Amino acid sequence: MTYTAPVKDLLFALEQLAGLERLAALPGGEDCGLDTAAAVLGECARLAQEVIAPLNRPGDLAPSRWQHGEVRTTPGFAAAFAQFAAGGWQGLQHPAAYGGQALPKALAAACAEMVHAASLSFALCPMLSDGAIEALLAAGSEELKNTWLPPLVEGRWTGTMNLTEPQAGSDLAQVRSRAEPQADGRWRIAGTKIFITYGEHDMAENIVHLVLARAAGAPAGVKGISLFLVPKFLPDQDGRPGQRNDVACTGIEHKLGIQASPTAVLAFGGGLAGSIADTQGPGAVGYLVGELNRGLETMFVMMNAARFAVGLQGVAIGERAFQQALAYARERVQGRPVDGSCAEAVPIVAHPDVRRMLMTMRALTEGCRAMALLAAGACDLAHRTPDAQERAGAQARYEFLVPLVKGFATEAGNESASLGVQVHGGMGFIEETGAAQHLRDARILTIYEGTTAIQANDLLGRKTLRDGGAQARLLAADIEATEEELAQSADPAEAQTRQGLRMAREDFLEVVDFMLAHGKTDPNAAYAGSVPYLMLAGLLVSGWQLARLQLAARRGLSGDAAADRDYLQAKIATARFFATHLLPRTAALRRQVVAGAASMQALPAALF
Amino acid sequence: MTYTAPVKDLLFALEQLAGLERLAALPGGEDCGLDTAAAVLGECARLAQEVIAPLNRPGDLAPSRWQHGEVRTTPGFAAAFAQFAAGGWQGLQHPAAYGGQALPKALAAACAEMVHAASLSFALCPMLSDGAIEALLAAGSEELKNTWLPPLVEGRWTGTMNLTEPQAGSDLAQVRSRAEPQADGRWRIAGTKIFITYGEHDMAENIVHLVLARAAGAPAGVKGISLFLVPKFLPDQDGRPGQRNDVACTGIEHKLGIQASPTAVLAFGGGLAGSIADTQGPGAVGYLVGELNRGLETMFVMMNAARFAVGLQGVAIGERAFQQALAYARERVQGRPVDGSCAEAVPIVAHPDVRRMLMTMRALTEGCRAMALLAAGACDLAHRTPDAQERAGAQARYEFLVPLVKGFATEAGNESASLGVQVHGGMGFIEETGAAQHLRDARILTIYEGTTAIQANDLLGRKTLRDGGAQARLLAADIEATEEELAQSADPAEAQTRQGLRMAREDFLEVVDFMLAHGKTDPNAAYAGSVPYLMLAGLLVSGWQLARLQLAARRGLSGDAAADRDYLQAKIATARFFATHLLPRTAALRRQVVAGAASMQALPAALF
Repeated sequence: MTYTAPVKDLLFALEQLAGLERLAALPGGEDCGLDTAAAVLGECARLAQEVIAPLNRPGDLAPSRWQHGEVRTTPGFAAAFAQFAAGGWQGLQHPAAYGGQALPKALAAACAEMVHAASLSFALCPMLSDGAIEALLAAGSEELKNTWLPPLVEGRWTGTMNLTEPQAGSDLAQVRSRAEPQADGRWRIAGTKIFITYGEHDMAENIVHLVLARAAGAPAGVKGISLFLVPKFLPDQDGRPGQRNDVACTGIEHKLGIQASPTAVLAFGGGLAGSIADTQGPGAVGYLVGELNRGLETMFVMMNAARFAVGLQGVAIGERAFQQALAYARERVQGRPVDGSCAEAVPIVAHPDVRRMLMTMRALTEGCRAMALLAAGACDLAHRTPDAQERAGAQARYEFLVPLVKGFATEAGNESASLGVQVHGGMGFIEETGAAQHLRDARILTIYEGTTAIQANDLLGRKTLRDGGAQARLLAADIEATEEELAQSADPAEAQTRQGLRMAREDFLEVVDFMLAHGKTDPNAAYAGSVPYLMLAGLLVSGWQLARLQLAARRGLSGDAAADRDYLQAKIATARFFATHLLPRTAALRRQVVAGAASMQALPAALF
Repeated sequence: MTYTAPVKDLLFALEQLAGLERLAALPGGEDCGLDTAAAVLGECARLAQEVIAPLNRPGDLAPSRWQHGEVRTTPGFAAAFAQFAAGGWQGLQHPAAYGGQALPKALAAACAEMVHAASLSFALCPMLSDGAIEALLAAGSEELKNTWLPPLVEGRWTGTMNLTEPQAGSDLAQVRSRAEPQADGRWRIAGTKIFITYGEHDMAENIVHLVLARAAGAPAGVKGISLFLVPKFLPDQDGRPGQRNDVACTGIEHKLGIQASPTAVLAFGGGLAGSIADTQGPGAVGYLVGELNRGLETMFVMMNAARFAVGLQGVAIGERAFQQALAYARERVQGRPVDGSCAEAVPIVAHPDVRRMLMTMRALTEGCRAMALLAAGACDLAHRTPDAQERAGAQARYEFLVPLVKGFATEAGNESASLGVQVHGGMGFIEETGAAQHLRDARILTIYEGTTAIQANDLLGRKTLRDGGAQARLLAADIEATEEELAQSADPAEAQTRQGLRMAREDFLEVVDFMLAHGKTDPNAAYAGSVPYLMLAGLLVSGWQLARLQLAARRGLSGDAAADRDYLQAKIATARFFATHLLPRTAALRRQVVAGAASMQALPAALF
């Protein structure tokens, strides 16, 4: 149940896929080259392995507990978070002006994967702070930024996202929380928010809630939603946590997994005793972030950051589950080899189907990691390159990839976690083993920050139909270029990868054509295939990135990297496995989309 | 969270697929026609819905507890089991000579599905008794049968299967439990067994353990294993539970799911205080079942029955998860339709991807149910027809289908349970909702009674390679006949189903050819594809059975079944959905098998 951070893999992908050296060559990027990355990853790996990972199981056994409005987190979590903050990890990718280290998102993503793998529950706290920081950076006034960003970036305070209400989940048009202006320019917020991750806890001095609410008189629907910053404690004149705001935590949820992370119900403006409500009447004091009625746009900034981060959680849980399953498969002795090569029972890693499961976990995890770091690199390039055209291209690529990273990597994480249980056989079902925790923990990933279907809607509507398939086809063209590189090799491994990639790309293009043909005329038919489309695209991009790593590995093998021979051979084997075992799924997905729409609508809802 | 037993579906499948009327026309089958079936299903449905289903959630919240060697089951379980026994449900399919009702296995299977759906945890107890009864019927002496069968069939006593030991899971060659002969013809058993379902409980007067152990001096490996009957209480001269045997329950497991069902560690012959060990020394008294050193053969009888039953559990959990998800999707209002047909938010069942998920659950569940009842009907025919050739054919068909029912229906049950969580969105992750329990409960199904890989080994080795693919090809020929029937229709729904079936059958045959070509020469390559082969075959047979139901529904619609119009239309829509959304998966599975073997072995275990 220990965790070994995959530092070498992360570094290889940062170099080969995220374009870290290119970023380091851009103005202001001098400090983000491979040497820096190696040093940062090494430090982060130590923290993840030694400080955070040992808390993962205790967090499941002794989850956060709610009592009288307060939440006591798992023993050890607060101290670990203090150490995390002291190491400067919260500020890794945030601007130096607010105390951050301004390192690339790609490098921060690599670090985040390790922290998530160490403990999904723990890592949610800094992840939500990241989102709050992004939102304030994107839309906050100078005053807001100067007041709230330094303690958030430092990790002294933490952030939350408050979107969901009982009647408003995926459908934010139904948000009912209300905001009334005060004479001093501040607002008073009232309403109930649910599913608020780390909405209350004992790991920081203050909690900064970013809350969607309707200003009095605002229009109905999503165009009447504004974003407010509502702290747990209002700062005193020295900027320290002062009066308690009228925000009460009325309970936390009993969940299937990530039990250590408190999922709070928050009552804003309920007249909490001991808060400002005692003297000033009910209503949580809040600050408008960005323009009135444009809260959703800012929330999308935050949500995109969070969606990408949840995709990393999918990679992380896949890695953690894989490591645990592999360790078990190497040590559990059971059954003789089917090829008769040994008369005694052998470790189950020798059995073909165990091998298939482990390779599937490995390939999915490495493929999703590669896709996530590709996306992060594109995001960095979009922010850092001085070339406007390159900026726009990188931004469009990043935006296309975000729903794939969130949607596909989390589905893949669930698949790996479930396979991890399966590799353990009966022991996998016993909670003491720990494999089941990964499965339980993983199950939220395809749901929060937008379900897979919500990601698929985004991919189809905003990222494919809106530009007439332009970005989708650019992507396919880039993939074809990789196929051509693979074609220059006579090696059968490259040929297999190339063939898998080509068939998957053709499936992808056929689906894109179908979507463009039906998106407007028959939206039910198009959206019936939205999740299969997302899964197809996720497979294709992950397989493509592994193919790029395969090419890099082949180049490495022809150099004098003798020490790395085994490592590079393993990269080649993984890419080839992905191409022959996982990419073929695109054929089924393509047929579902193209031939399946009518049959899906054939049954009226009443006849289900 | 209520459960409505799918009586109509079960009856339709019994009639159309299991050949119930044919069975009723055979000698001795007079009482098993459709009228009897309808009456029995109706009674069983009431019991399942009203008595057992309400215990499912309490069983999760207040699982079985172990204390001082005793297990206290969830309040209500013992009373419900008494009611189950009093209703004669334990004896449904067992011989009248021992107090049973001698009804067909197909009808018993339909009833078992309902009981499993009501509560997997509860239903395991009678399921294990069924296995013990089958083993005694197959191999027990007259004396053993006369002593032990009546109370088991009556449900006064219950049975267990004791195979697993810490070092012997899938690999029974490693069983170490030992048996020493006594002068009186009985044996003394010593050893530790783990994962014993209902190995200890408070729901019956006595527990009858069937235990694999090695007689003193027996050869190593599976050819030295014998089967012993070891009761918790030795019967007194009136046949009532008398002296306590030397069998101790030293603990039960803390599991991911099916928490109400106690999973016991049993110590045989450990010198339990208060048992016969006090006066006669340690050693559990046991009776040899069948011949010495041939215990595994008898255990296989029991295991085949149990494997089939676990397949039914897969169907059951799929149905339960589907019903819960559908109810939620009909009541949860969120988001406007993508086709702009309504300006207000609508129940989520209207959204295409929710529809896709619900249809997937529905189609998988109905397809697996259809396959299971086909198999049960074949088993009945094999036992009841006087025609020797027909008997042999039906037996071979049944044996081919058992690994599919166990392997595929349980994987499908997991997929449905996971989709059920997904349909609920965030609420699915909250334990109070109940959707997560189904996922946790389902997760054992692909593991116990032989993992999916073990089923796949059986399918490939014993059921495909051994007869040179004969049964596999017979199956394909029968499927082709259904395709021809479909071809006689001009209806597009039939055309889609036919096309899906044809492509899947061709994939199947290509894989069978691959297996026959490589099974002996390159067993690693063949077994690398064993689970994909099983999944492919399971999809094909399920889709085929739904196609047969589609044809029956079409015939029904052309008759005067006006009242059933909606029902029959729904059958057609489901078969068509299966053919266009689920059968296409065979293309990916075929490529995995045929093109993927080499890439799976490319990475040496040490380089993982």
